[in-house]
Amino acid sequence: MRVKDYVNRVVSDAEKASLSIATASSSLKNAALEQIAQNLINAKATLMRENEKDIHAAESAGLSMAMIDRLRLTESRIEEMVDGIRQVINLSDPVGEIMEGKLRPNGLQIQKVRVPIGVIAIIYESRPNVTADAASLCLKTGNVTILRGGKESIFSNLAIYRQISSALERVGMDKNVIQVIETADREAVNYLLKADEFVDLVIPRGGEGLIRNVVENSTIPVIKHYKGVCHTYVDEYANLDMARDICLNAKTQRPGTCNAMETMLVHEKVAEKFLPDVHRVMSEAGVELRGCGLSRAILPDIRPATEEDWSEEYLEKILSVKVVSSLEDAINHISSYGSSHSDAIVTELISHAKRFTDEVDSAAVYVNASTRFTDGYEFGMGAEIGISTDKLHARGPMGLNELTSYKYVVYGNGQIR
Amino acid sequence: MRVKDYVNRVVSDAEKASLSIATASSSLKNAALEQIAQNLINAKATLMRENEKDIHAAESAGLSMAMIDRLRLTESRIEEMVDGIRQVINLSDPVGEIMEGKLRPNGLQIQKVRVPIGVIAIIYESRPNVTADAASLCLKTGNVTILRGGKESIFSNLAIYRQISSALERVGMDKNVIQVIETADREAVNYLLKADEFVDLVIPRGGEGLIRNVVENSTIPVIKHYKGVCHTYVDEYANLDMARDICLNAKTQRPGTCNAMETMLVHEKVAEKFLPDVHRVMSEAGVELRGCGLSRAILPDIRPATEEDWSEEYLEKILSVKVVSSLEDAINHISSYGSSHSDAIVTELISHAKRFTDEVDSAAVYVNASTRFTDGYEFGMGAEIGISTDKLHARGPMGLNELTSYKYVVYGNGQIR
Repeated sequence: MRVKDYVNRVVSDAEKASLSIATASSSLKNAALEQIAQNLINAKATLMRENEKDIHAAESAGLSMAMIDRLRLTESRIEEMVDGIRQVINLSDPVGEIMEGKLRPNGLQIQKVRVPIGVIAIIYESRPNVTADAASLCLKTGNVTILRGGKESIFSNLAIYRQISSALERVGMDKNVIQVIETADREAVNYLLKADEFVDLVIPRGGEGLIRNVVENSTIPVIKHYKGVCHTYVDEYANLDMARDICLNAKTQRPGTCNAMETMLVHEKVAEKFLPDVHRVMSEAGVELRGCGLSRAILPDIRPATEEDWSEEYLEKILSVKVVSSLEDAINHISSYGSSHSDAIVTELISHAKRFTDEVDSAAVYVNASTRFTDGYEFGMGAEIGISTDKLHARGPMGLNELTSYKYVVYGNGQIR
Repeated sequence: MRVKDYVNRVVSDAEKASLSIATASSSLKNAALEQIAQNLINAKATLMRENEKDIHAAESAGLSMAMIDRLRLTESRIEEMVDGIRQVINLSDPVGEIMEGKLRPNGLQIQKVRVPIGVIAIIYESRPNVTADAASLCLKTGNVTILRGGKESIFSNLAIYRQISSALERVGMDKNVIQVIETADREAVNYLLKADEFVDLVIPRGGEGLIRNVVENSTIPVIKHYKGVCHTYVDEYANLDMARDICLNAKTQRPGTCNAMETMLVHEKVAEKFLPDVHRVMSEAGVELRGCGLSRAILPDIRPATEEDWSEEYLEKILSVKVVSSLEDAINHISSYGSSHSDAIVTELISHAKRFTDEVDSAAVYVNASTRFTDGYEFGMGAEIGISTDKLHARGPMGLNELTSYKYVVYGNGQIR
């Protein structure tokens, strides 16, 4: 079958399956999720065997250690995946919620009812756990999922998918509720991205290249999860001990995440006192600092930061440091170089906190806390499919509610205009 | 200046203006709106004179009477435009609303705060009133607007825009808060649609060709306002008098609108009784019926409906009629031929109403009321910028709230993970 016909069949099967899952009861959806969890547990050995093939191919292709680590499915990672699914089972189903309701003067009763989005395509790379994570969140919210993983994890993704598919069949659900694009042909993605008649949303998960390709070629709405170049600004009126602890946490607790701090901004009036202290704890934690001229006047042994450093998402133990002369300077720096993800101010002054939270245009803006909290679990959503850096539909952590749309259901008794 | 450089300047000026309008007080925004209203009233004669140039060009180009009518600015249309702006002034400003707030177990206080979207581009054709309508809704919600009207209304749009611009200046607001793309060069739209670094949302308003072009070329999120092929299904258990009145209203009260009925579905068990009655009132109102075979067996003198009729948005006094054998048939017909805009069932049976509202995947689904109610004013939103047939961000009538995004503002006292 030609790739185009194949993709057409997948998307039209997906659309056909969407009514049954949209109106499925929570009990049925939870039963399917529990069956998926059990199947994955039972298939641990198979999953690891198939994953070995991907690891082997990755090693032959000379992929980086970090890439290979992201690819790897260990026993504990499979258990984490299964725990994740069971957490989703325990969340309450948002579908059917009456979000708003009003009685109009003419007697019309208007309800705004939460409904699934419809068909969601997830395009991702490397981490095979996304296959189960994304599918379970979409299933819980009554959406049909089309998964397209990277070719580097194809054996792992298909092995996970076979377990999902047999679980759906076991509980009597349409197997097209979750589908995988099985061909490695890159053309498949292009056809998928033009299928706006059948697919309602595309969520790309991966590096900038992948996301840019999706944005440029998709005629379907996209919610992006771009990079996180997160800042912490240590204000003139900061509690400097608190600032040090927050910065250390934001940089080092998990440097590879998008909500980790990449640039620290320090007010010039406190730089001389603050920088040596923070430099000490960062060095102890193995963090390399790269500084502007003013910070290097205080810490002469750190490497100079280049213009590129200010917009770099290091995702490792590197921190760029800039001394600024005012709150306004800090806000301007964030607006020029930031990625609208998560940014923090440490200050005791209410007017500075207010100005920072008003003017910094990011998904999450913090006062006196670590940027590491931008996360579906930490925000009390129970789970997340990613962190949107877009401003439409969903911004910041995307939980179950963000995987839904709504419709207006209007009851009358003969009203006309 | 080259078109590309010109568009680049417009979008980057727009982005620079976005912080000032995003944080502007409601009083200042309302003062600007009132000044725009006053300027338009004072400039009535000029507006009509400039509009004459467009009308003249349209007549020379041989545009249809309907097109020319849409173009025309009369004294009363200018007054309507001004009334619209004053209604927007009276609406409450959604920006800054705390939509949700929670205290996490670790003491973090998380607020979900309503903020403007940022920079919104409106691409529209013919009706010059969109210039003032769209700009005033965007201004009220703290967004920057870039307007790109059709070349057929260029003189009218620029005349309106000059009044807007001088009003902004008069109240001391950055004039780049509302801008018009002044060149008629079609390339300008293509550059605008790729400016995702500066523009946050594109709203196309116009025919299918315009919308398709925007969807296919934009790397910026788009909210579409496609056509409305709206249905009314007269169930076996309908109150037939009510059904007749609802159908007549849905078809004839304003046939040129997207929420007018285009296809009437009638259950076979009531067709023989219902169709002659509805045919009579429709004929009196000047509506032409086009029927399926079964309906023509009952109404032999109506014209047969072709396959194309079922997906046609007539926007005039034509109605396609189909006899169906069940509720399921009706739902299937709507799902195959509808446009996910507004669809109604007339029934006294609660189970049929429930199944219809659950399974018809449209922005607004009605029980025993006319589809003509899908409208921002009728839904109690006070105003609308259009009716979204998309499922992301906004569905159905888009009022002020739908022109906003949100950010998370998080207060801590030193929390780390």
